[in-house]
Amino acid sequence: MSVIRLDGVTKYFGKKAALDGVSAEFETGRIYGLLGRNGAGKSTLINSVCNRVRINKGEISLDGERLQENDKALGHIYAMSEGVNLPGDMRISSAFKVTGDFYPNFDNEYAGELAKRFGLDVKKRLGRLSTGYRTIAKIIIALSSGAEFIFLDEPVLGLDANHRELFYRLLVERFIDSGCCMVVSTHLIDECANLFEHVIIIDKGKVICSESAETLLNEGCAITGSAAAVDRFCKDMDILSQSSMGGIKSVYVRGRPESVPNGLEISKPDMQQIFVSITGGQEGEGDTK
Amino acid sequence: MSVIRLDGVTKYFGKKAALDGVSAEFETGRIYGLLGRNGAGKSTLINSVCNRVRINKGEISLDGERLQENDKALGHIYAMSEGVNLPGDMRISSAFKVTGDFYPNFDNEYAGELAKRFGLDVKKRLGRLSTGYRTIAKIIIALSSGAEFIFLDEPVLGLDANHRELFYRLLVERFIDSGCCMVVSTHLIDECANLFEHVIIIDKGKVICSESAETLLNEGCAITGSAAAVDRFCKDMDILSQSSMGGIKSVYVRGRPESVPNGLEISKPDMQQIFVSITGGQEGEGDTK
Repeated sequence: MSVIRLDGVTKYFGKKAALDGVSAEFETGRIYGLLGRNGAGKSTLINSVCNRVRINKGEISLDGERLQENDKALGHIYAMSEGVNLPGDMRISSAFKVTGDFYPNFDNEYAGELAKRFGLDVKKRLGRLSTGYRTIAKIIIALSSGAEFIFLDEPVLGLDANHRELFYRLLVERFIDSGCCMVVSTHLIDECANLFEHVIIIDKGKVICSESAETLLNEGCAITGSAAAVDRFCKDMDILSQSSMGGIKSVYVRGRPESVPNGLEISKPDMQQIFVSITGGQEGEGDTK
Repeated sequence: MSVIRLDGVTKYFGKKAALDGVSAEFETGRIYGLLGRNGAGKSTLINSVCNRVRINKGEISLDGERLQENDKALGHIYAMSEGVNLPGDMRISSAFKVTGDFYPNFDNEYAGELAKRFGLDVKKRLGRLSTGYRTIAKIIIALSSGAEFIFLDEPVLGLDANHRELFYRLLVERFIDSGCCMVVSTHLIDECANLFEHVIIIDKGKVICSESAETLLNEGCAITGSAAAVDRFCKDMDILSQSSMGGIKSVYVRGRPESVPNGLEISKPDMQQIFVSITGGQEGEGDTK
């Protein structure tokens, strides 16, 4: 098992701390959800780990070895980030090759196979891709990188529902085959939630929650049914968050009642409900960059 | 009432028809959903209307006047597209001003107010924004443009759940205040569906559905409940698509049964279910650019 450790990592952009004393661990053999609102610091965290931004304080290490400016250790980490970081006139097939130069375990054959499954023409130039297909090119490179640690920043940006579904399947397949560490940062929490073994939530540059998904999901329960019946049954409970779909309402409450009336259903809460209850529902929080 | 009309619009990229004989209408006083899988041609359609790509065949007009290379008519149309189309070192406040030069009804005060609500610092440079905040800057400019026709291509790209919610509210407010035409292209169909009055679905460059949301929602119904009960009740029905959330299953069936057993609920299908049933569930379809 390998582990990346962040210890008191702080990063300023101007006067604003994008990361404010962040400590966290990422182990191989696990899939992490890295969650937070826009501007919370998720991308800065990922960019710090892979040395794309220089941190102001703290330490980041891989198996005890300092990561900053350590090319050998950084070769174990692939971070799919917002930008493409390759020239726009480069063809996708060349992007595969160039990545292979830095990541000796890059699997060119697998990358080609994924391109086929997503309907991505590898003769295309990176700069000519739509948002959705640019994301697809980036996730193919990340999944094929062969790195021990794969950070995926918004891996479903611009993807249609079918392509998102395909990506989730491939991520799990790749994880099982390689036993690597996957860290997924996303705003489509519900769709990804059942992938996560561990969830790290950051807010205004600080880690405000780091728990196993199991623990989080067992702190409360969801009660689901027709809106009126749910409201009636839950009126004296500690309601942490709520959501609805059509006439059906689902509320996330602390604890777990022993039984529910006929017509209502009791189940684990969904991750979006938990996230909302932890981060609150304020409007804009400000960008950190 | 003003109307944009597309008549047999065809656009090739190389040998591939990104748009293949597209005819459609967009009227003021309506919100349209423009739906399609990755690479279906949605962005090309929007870019054709605002003259950012030159079409190969067909005609696009505004109230009977040809739109191509007609700057006066194009001044009634604002299209928020994938790119920012402004220099990366420009500050957001300057981007507001520049847009005001082209769109005389641009509401600078409203733009500033929206920036505050989203937590966007208008002194920031466009090129320094995260994906989410870049989208926020673009939607603020679009909603403030004062144009009669506002096309929004992926307006929630990279937005967290709270910011998406805020955007949907603002869109409706602005629509009610102005009576303009809004055209929203998105992959997060469920979240947007109740905004749409009319839905246009394109697939491989062709319009395969153009219906009022009302009509689409009444062609079938959704039956929702615990997965086992739903499967039992619907086993002999014509199932058009299905989805689940936790232990809840919802299937979209043709027609509408007169009653359902206790514990099941019958309701209008959701737009994602309808979209999936119309476009099928194949894997990659290929990019058109």
